[in-house]
Amino acid sequence: MYQEYQRDPNWVIDDYPNLTLEQIRERTMRKVRGTADKLLSESRSIFMLRMSVISVIDPGFWTRFGVHMGLFFGALQGQATPSQFSYWVQKGALTLKKFIGCFSMTELGHGSNVAGIETTATFDADKDQFIIHTPTLTATKWWIGGAAHSATHSAVYARLIVNGKDYGVKTFIVQLRDPETYELMAGVNIGDIGKKMGRDQIDNGWIQFTNVRIPRSNMLMKHTKVSSTGVVTEPPMAQLAYGALITGRVTMVADSANIAKKALTIALRYAAIRRQFSSGPPGTPETKLLDYPIHQHRLLPLLSQTFAMNFAARRLNDQFEQLNKQLESSKLGDDIKGVLTQLKETHATSAGLKSYCTWTTLNIIDQCRQSLGGHGYSAYTGLSTMYQDFAVHCTWEGDNTILMLQCGRYLVNAAKGFTKGATLPENLMFLNKAGTKEEWSKCTSTEPNVVCSIATLNEGWATVAASAIFRAYREFEKHLKTSNNIDEAYEKCSASRLHAARMHITAYLMHCISEAVSGGNVEQELVKPLTLMATLYGVSMAIQYSGEFLQSGYFNSAQINILRTRLDQICGEVRKVAILLVDSFGYTDYVINSPFGRYDGNIYETYYNLVTRLNPQKPIPYFETVIKPLLNRSLEFEEGPQLEIDMEK
Amino acid sequence: MYQEYQRDPNWVIDDYPNLTLEQIRERTMRKVRGTADKLLSESRSIFMLRMSVISVIDPGFWTRFGVHMGLFFGALQGQATPSQFSYWVQKGALTLKKFIGCFSMTELGHGSNVAGIETTATFDADKDQFIIHTPTLTATKWWIGGAAHSATHSAVYARLIVNGKDYGVKTFIVQLRDPETYELMAGVNIGDIGKKMGRDQIDNGWIQFTNVRIPRSNMLMKHTKVSSTGVVTEPPMAQLAYGALITGRVTMVADSANIAKKALTIALRYAAIRRQFSSGPPGTPETKLLDYPIHQHRLLPLLSQTFAMNFAARRLNDQFEQLNKQLESSKLGDDIKGVLTQLKETHATSAGLKSYCTWTTLNIIDQCRQSLGGHGYSAYTGLSTMYQDFAVHCTWEGDNTILMLQCGRYLVNAAKGFTKGATLPENLMFLNKAGTKEEWSKCTSTEPNVVCSIATLNEGWATVAASAIFRAYREFEKHLKTSNNIDEAYEKCSASRLHAARMHITAYLMHCISEAVSGGNVEQELVKPLTLMATLYGVSMAIQYSGEFLQSGYFNSAQINILRTRLDQICGEVRKVAILLVDSFGYTDYVINSPFGRYDGNIYETYYNLVTRLNPQKPIPYFETVIKPLLNRSLEFEEGPQLEIDMEK
Repeated sequence: MYQEYQRDPNWVIDDYPNLTLEQIRERTMRKVRGTADKLLSESRSIFMLRMSVISVIDPGFWTRFGVHMGLFFGALQGQATPSQFSYWVQKGALTLKKFIGCFSMTELGHGSNVAGIETTATFDADKDQFIIHTPTLTATKWWIGGAAHSATHSAVYARLIVNGKDYGVKTFIVQLRDPETYELMAGVNIGDIGKKMGRDQIDNGWIQFTNVRIPRSNMLMKHTKVSSTGVVTEPPMAQLAYGALITGRVTMVADSANIAKKALTIALRYAAIRRQFSSGPPGTPETKLLDYPIHQHRLLPLLSQTFAMNFAARRLNDQFEQLNKQLESSKLGDDIKGVLTQLKETHATSAGLKSYCTWTTLNIIDQCRQSLGGHGYSAYTGLSTMYQDFAVHCTWEGDNTILMLQCGRYLVNAAKGFTKGATLPENLMFLNKAGTKEEWSKCTSTEPNVVCSIATLNEGWATVAASAIFRAYREFEKHLKTSNNIDEAYEKCSASRLHAARMHITAYLMHCISEAVSGGNVEQELVKPLTLMATLYGVSMAIQYSGEFLQSGYFNSAQINILRTRLDQICGEVRKVAILLVDSFGYTDYVINSPFGRYDGNIYETYYNLVTRLNPQKPIPYFETVIKPLLNRSLEFEEGPQLEIDMEK
Repeated sequence: MYQEYQRDPNWVIDDYPNLTLEQIRERTMRKVRGTADKLLSESRSIFMLRMSVISVIDPGFWTRFGVHMGLFFGALQGQATPSQFSYWVQKGALTLKKFIGCFSMTELGHGSNVAGIETTATFDADKDQFIIHTPTLTATKWWIGGAAHSATHSAVYARLIVNGKDYGVKTFIVQLRDPETYELMAGVNIGDIGKKMGRDQIDNGWIQFTNVRIPRSNMLMKHTKVSSTGVVTEPPMAQLAYGALITGRVTMVADSANIAKKALTIALRYAAIRRQFSSGPPGTPETKLLDYPIHQHRLLPLLSQTFAMNFAARRLNDQFEQLNKQLESSKLGDDIKGVLTQLKETHATSAGLKSYCTWTTLNIIDQCRQSLGGHGYSAYTGLSTMYQDFAVHCTWEGDNTILMLQCGRYLVNAAKGFTKGATLPENLMFLNKAGTKEEWSKCTSTEPNVVCSIATLNEGWATVAASAIFRAYREFEKHLKTSNNIDEAYEKCSASRLHAARMHITAYLMHCISEAVSGGNVEQELVKPLTLMATLYGVSMAIQYSGEFLQSGYFNSAQINILRTRLDQICGEVRKVAILLVDSFGYTDYVINSPFGRYDGNIYETYYNLVTRLNPQKPIPYFETVIKPLLNRSLEFEEGPQLEIDMEK
């Protein structure tokens, strides 16, 4: 796949910084055709792999294609009845024959709270139609990817109104443009949202509907149904629809790991080439950045975070696929309590992981960028644009803070259930160790090899997570006594709740990376480097959150100092294999798309050639009109006419 | 000043996201003339104020003008002899008459380590000239602001070579272009560095010199001198030249506070308007973001950091002006030991503060951006471009990590001196409390009002800083025993050294903000809000670094929990005055340049109008060429000719 893209003129990516918004969007659209053809000819698993490759090569294109395939087509898959689904497929929704879809959920005044959406879909029984309408400015559909230039149709989220009653937000298919001319349909008003921080490849737009009529059958009715006489049937198990929300998050956890790998490949390869300052006597060659302990401290813990995210992404993916199988095989009337428990757990873990991993990677990118010194500020070294493209991950598909709080709410609930004797799901089994009296386990050793062992760190992180979860739970119980309702109590303990989720997910990552070492099928030669990564992750994160370890009592002050000493040592050990570890990610120079991440280390020449090729020497365009008048202006103070009053004097 | 710029057509700033690199640069150059005229007509103090206003309105222009005024002209002021200085002023260096300067220090392969620069200035005694030469690709001058489009002359850093001997890096004035035509001078090769993460207003370029000859008198000789016969005289007190380095840092600490104010005005005004989710019964209006405890926790501690930076900037500025007076009045032969001590202290503190404050503000901008939800990703809401413009502050004028380590080295040295009985400079007096036996002070109270008082927090932060400094010092002493030289020992303890500097500067900020409350001349009505800010700063930072407080023993676990409870309360109290606090920054809507930061709260309409004005509706430019062929392509599988071998069958 790397070869396919590297050789395709539509997939040139190294000149992006010098293209205008319109040039970027046009080139992006040119790539749709080839990708659509692959979609039709490849197996699902190969195509999913292709999409994950694309998300590393060109995240903006991935979004543009994903809006149709992931969001619009995903809405059909998740919310259409079988006959509706086959109707839209026949209309071209899969082949992109005279059809491109977009997904109109968010509004100018409404983002995370989908239930607050203002757009209405009012049923007109006489005509068997819905009237889609944007009642206010804040109800304008906003941020709609693909709306500005691409889409013929949209899945529109709107309030279902039947006989004056509001049934909440449902999904409706609305045609936006004539596929022959791309003229807007009557009543549809669309504009371009313009420049964003990154991902200019995707043409986000705004949409206003003014009394647009659609057939009743354009409402997706897999769950809620509206009959021709206006009878509304609500689904028996609304929660089962949530499964679809998780897909995006699972993808984004994997994407976080993949993009972090790209960033670290650039930063570490550069650090192995760049020399700066000499620590020996005069005349000694300058020292490589990577040989400085401080540079190791800056980058190597980030490498361990990347490995931890990598294994967490795999585990989450397995869990999600297992859940999907259960969901597909379970029928109405089955005892689906077990499935629902699993669904809630996966929902909470995926929410926490999505937030945690996207935040972690955003930080990794910026730390890597800063580690390049001044060159990190160039658009051609890859990390500034990577940051700008990646940043949106922390907001879309659920704002990170809100998702983290949802995870925290689940954890507080679990602690509550646990104290009342409920059985815990597998990922929370560690709470068992906490005991009902909340006596936390302690590390009693003073032996560095024991204190810094993966087993000790794993238990320590589980203890810290349990302690943070129970602290949030106690706070919640305290606030419940003085609150009007349960939601208010949850809001009041939100800082502790968010912190509990953060500690839980850190412990989860620690668990995943240590499982990768101890798992039965790990190749022998990988044990040592993976052990280094797991230890580095556990130690560096424990130092970062030393207050938690001291407060829970798992480690004492002397043990924290042992961790600090070990961190210095382990950074030195990892330095020796750091380049091999990033080589193991297997990205080609084309994929890395940065002179600083080149495999052959020829960074300066490549960088110079790229910059001069994209910015050829030419006359200064505004010399005659601006610079020359400035440099030749008169500095004499201009005197006005002499006044008679002065002459009379 | 705000009015002057708001009414000047050259100073339109709200359409920046839609301009090309060339349009931005041209508009920027148009602003130079008016600013240069002000420079000639205004007092220095008023003009400095103007520059700080400009740095908030248009940071990129501030850089373009600052390259000439701050860097080039600053080099003349700091390094030219009186006759050299008046020569270049006569040539137009102050008036910009046929003269624009730039500053050529960094090279493609050499950034922070100025001593490693490769460009040579070889003395030719026969012709009384220097030959400026770029010997290698990595010696190419790189990142030179103003080189691509603006400068006629440059202050070039190059190695002074006389009779084959290398005297280290000195500064030489080299003409780059003919001011009448802007043709490059013979032997000078210049190119454009192109697109950056931000600050596209400044035309960074690269320069290669090939045996360019300049008169001997073009070497700036205030310090080192070269006679016509090639006798080199080194200055007696090289350290006194460092004063100039500090100026940029002092400015950047103030700029950090000023930009943080701008970011928080946007985020907090938006949070007071935007409603999301309803916590009451159905039908209740959605809750304002700012009324959510979690949103308060996200933003209000950042507000307290901004106040702390504000007062630290003032204190640093005072200290710097005092130092400058001492430097100016001290003459060779004076006992300047006191001045040198003061210089070293200011150097270290300004280095630490520059790093700490620019990192803090970069984080504040991104947290504010994320707090806008999806709208934070739009280029028109101001925070994404603010981030991109500001990010370079963490690298230029000394990479933050390196500066932080310099500050740490100074602190380790101070601890060493202290244990040997040396007197401490004023900013380090708190180490006295540590005692030679390193017995840290403890907070013994369990009374929340005492634990969370400014006095307790101030003492606590001083204790934590002292404890971190002595830990780094002990580590340094330990490594010294196994190192080849002192530098190696410093490198080995670099993680602790950096941490010590971070704790020291946090304590310094705590000190500055509490001084602002307790200082004699604070107006009575300001005491309460400033007390809130100081307490919030001390409490929130102590929770963030709770491990330090627990390890030093200043607070115990129960006291940390008291801080947590107080943080919840104080966030609620600050919420009530949060909008008044940002109003007090006094930025007009023009300066804020974001629909989300509008004083009148009319965010949605302003945002919609701006987006639609800058992105008017128009036909899709690539519909006929790209979209139509895609939507109408044939999906039939194309069969090749039928083979005889099959027909024979």
